[in-house]
Amino acid sequence: MAPRVALDAMGGDHAPKEMIRGAIAAQRDAGVTPLLVGDERAIHECLLAEGAEPERWQIVHAADAVAMDERPVEAVRSRRQTSIRRVAEMLGANEIDAMVTMGNTGAAVAAGVLIVGRLPGVERPGLGVMLPSRGKRTLVIDVGANAEARARHLLQFAIMGCVYQERTQGVANPRVGLLSIGEEESKGNMLVHESARLLDTEALNYAGHIDPAHIFHRETDVNVCDGFSGNVVIKAAEATAEFALGELRYEVEKRWAAKLGAQMMLPALRAMRRRTDYAEIGATPLLGLKGLILIGHGRSRSPAVVNALLAADQAVRASLVPTIASGLQASAER
Amino acid sequence: MAPRVALDAMGGDHAPKEMIRGAIAAQRDAGVTPLLVGDERAIHECLLAEGAEPERWQIVHAADAVAMDERPVEAVRSRRQTSIRRVAEMLGANEIDAMVTMGNTGAAVAAGVLIVGRLPGVERPGLGVMLPSRGKRTLVIDVGANAEARARHLLQFAIMGCVYQERTQGVANPRVGLLSIGEEESKGNMLVHESARLLDTEALNYAGHIDPAHIFHRETDVNVCDGFSGNVVIKAAEATAEFALGELRYEVEKRWAAKLGAQMMLPALRAMRRRTDYAEIGATPLLGLKGLILIGHGRSRSPAVVNALLAADQAVRASLVPTIASGLQASAER
Repeated sequence: MAPRVALDAMGGDHAPKEMIRGAIAAQRDAGVTPLLVGDERAIHECLLAEGAEPERWQIVHAADAVAMDERPVEAVRSRRQTSIRRVAEMLGANEIDAMVTMGNTGAAVAAGVLIVGRLPGVERPGLGVMLPSRGKRTLVIDVGANAEARARHLLQFAIMGCVYQERTQGVANPRVGLLSIGEEESKGNMLVHESARLLDTEALNYAGHIDPAHIFHRETDVNVCDGFSGNVVIKAAEATAEFALGELRYEVEKRWAAKLGAQMMLPALRAMRRRTDYAEIGATPLLGLKGLILIGHGRSRSPAVVNALLAADQAVRASLVPTIASGLQASAER
Repeated sequence: MAPRVALDAMGGDHAPKEMIRGAIAAQRDAGVTPLLVGDERAIHECLLAEGAEPERWQIVHAADAVAMDERPVEAVRSRRQTSIRRVAEMLGANEIDAMVTMGNTGAAVAAGVLIVGRLPGVERPGLGVMLPSRGKRTLVIDVGANAEARARHLLQFAIMGCVYQERTQGVANPRVGLLSIGEEESKGNMLVHESARLLDTEALNYAGHIDPAHIFHRETDVNVCDGFSGNVVIKAAEATAEFALGELRYEVEKRWAAKLGAQMMLPALRAMRRRTDYAEIGATPLLGLKGLILIGHGRSRSPAVVNALLAADQAVRASLVPTIASGLQASAER
């Protein structure tokens, strides 16, 4: 049976239009047809506007939606008709195998924990992000599902991240790094010291500390950290890239030769941007739950939706969640 | 009396040569003459090689030096003849007003705490870094003097950072941000929540949470955080800038038109790089000690040394350390 993937049609800055366009493209180009969850009438209209036949799509109505800037836990708890809640209920009830949302990340995490539920033994799910790079990509987990973490959570992030790299990216025996400030074992905070002890004794390919300065060097496949630090990494990286581009633009604008030069460099700039674009990565997995949740960037447009839907389809085919469950169980029994 | 500034002539990847060149340039161009601390013979030879007259320089001999990759606390504790220790002893004994080192950061922090000593009431010094930007620069403190911090330390970082911005950069009534993951008050870890309460009740221009994504936007003048997170911010930023440049170079190399375009953009690229270069910033202050320590990048060459020496001279003239001491005292009495 083909994986049953549902799309939160109301999540993200460009919902529902870009969500529906992504769903149509995923069906047309890859034969992946998501169930569409959200305002039935809006979805219907979007499908028609894009030249699709609404009667050929499975639509699950949800009258309400969580806004991007809402307080997530409250919204998920108090409002019963939101699309994120409805799709999570279906995942929790095993009516679908995976869900994709480009909506409020906090709401997706809250819906995952409160409604889908955690795998046995999991205290904290981890949100993983693939950092862009030329060859294989390195995963950072957790990037913000929880602000606080303990060593035993980092151990679970490592196990789950390794299964993710193995199953979805074909990385054999992934190398695990522990995010710290310096590669020496003496560096780091208390969480790092405790986690190092735990990771070193586990049946993992543990490579020791990884300094944020080396995180793009692909020396490791999975990098574990508390969600506060992980979130700081990805946001500082994003801010730096934006800042550098803005400063370069400012300097280029002052010089006519540089402006011409920039024009001539456009294809190279675009190629670089494509590789580092979140749309290429599609969405990031929230691991440790009974079902698979992929969460994309709020600014996602249809290409990101397509990639996220394909990633969800492939992850289900690769038995990602059951393999994580057995990996965690094996660790608990050691 | 002119400020008495000493330079660790043996610290950094390019010591002593680039240190001595920087000292000579600082004297020639700005009339700032540092005392030189390190291997007397090596310093003597460097001065001669650069066409300077050694007898006109005050040299304090130190036979040993801490390497860049040494374990800092052990090195400072066990080896009595290192240049960093010697210069810190002079600062602690009030024989000089400020010291500059481009050496091992951890060793400089250890020498500062163990030998120079903390100001009354200070539990943890904070290492501050100015982030590059087009207009005024924003300070992040602590970026790694300590891996662990408590809310009362962040409050002291805020007070010290504000004095630094006021006294050395002329920023009136600096705005203080608390580094967190999201601007909402509900976001962040326990340290953030506790610190928010403390900062909000203090006589500070407190602006609330600052998300790492907005840290280059200059909405705040001083951003406080624990040293682990702060170190992650600056290293992730550095790694991203390097990664982006490397990827762009890779894409440019594949295209002849882009290669030509890159040539035409060189002046703009250089202008941007100058502004974001650590050499322009010179060195970062370690605040909370009885004397002023400025610590530069290990890769520093003479221009960075010049800027660091001038910054030290100006900070002493601006009574930075005494103003920090009275600011902390006023806070303790509130």
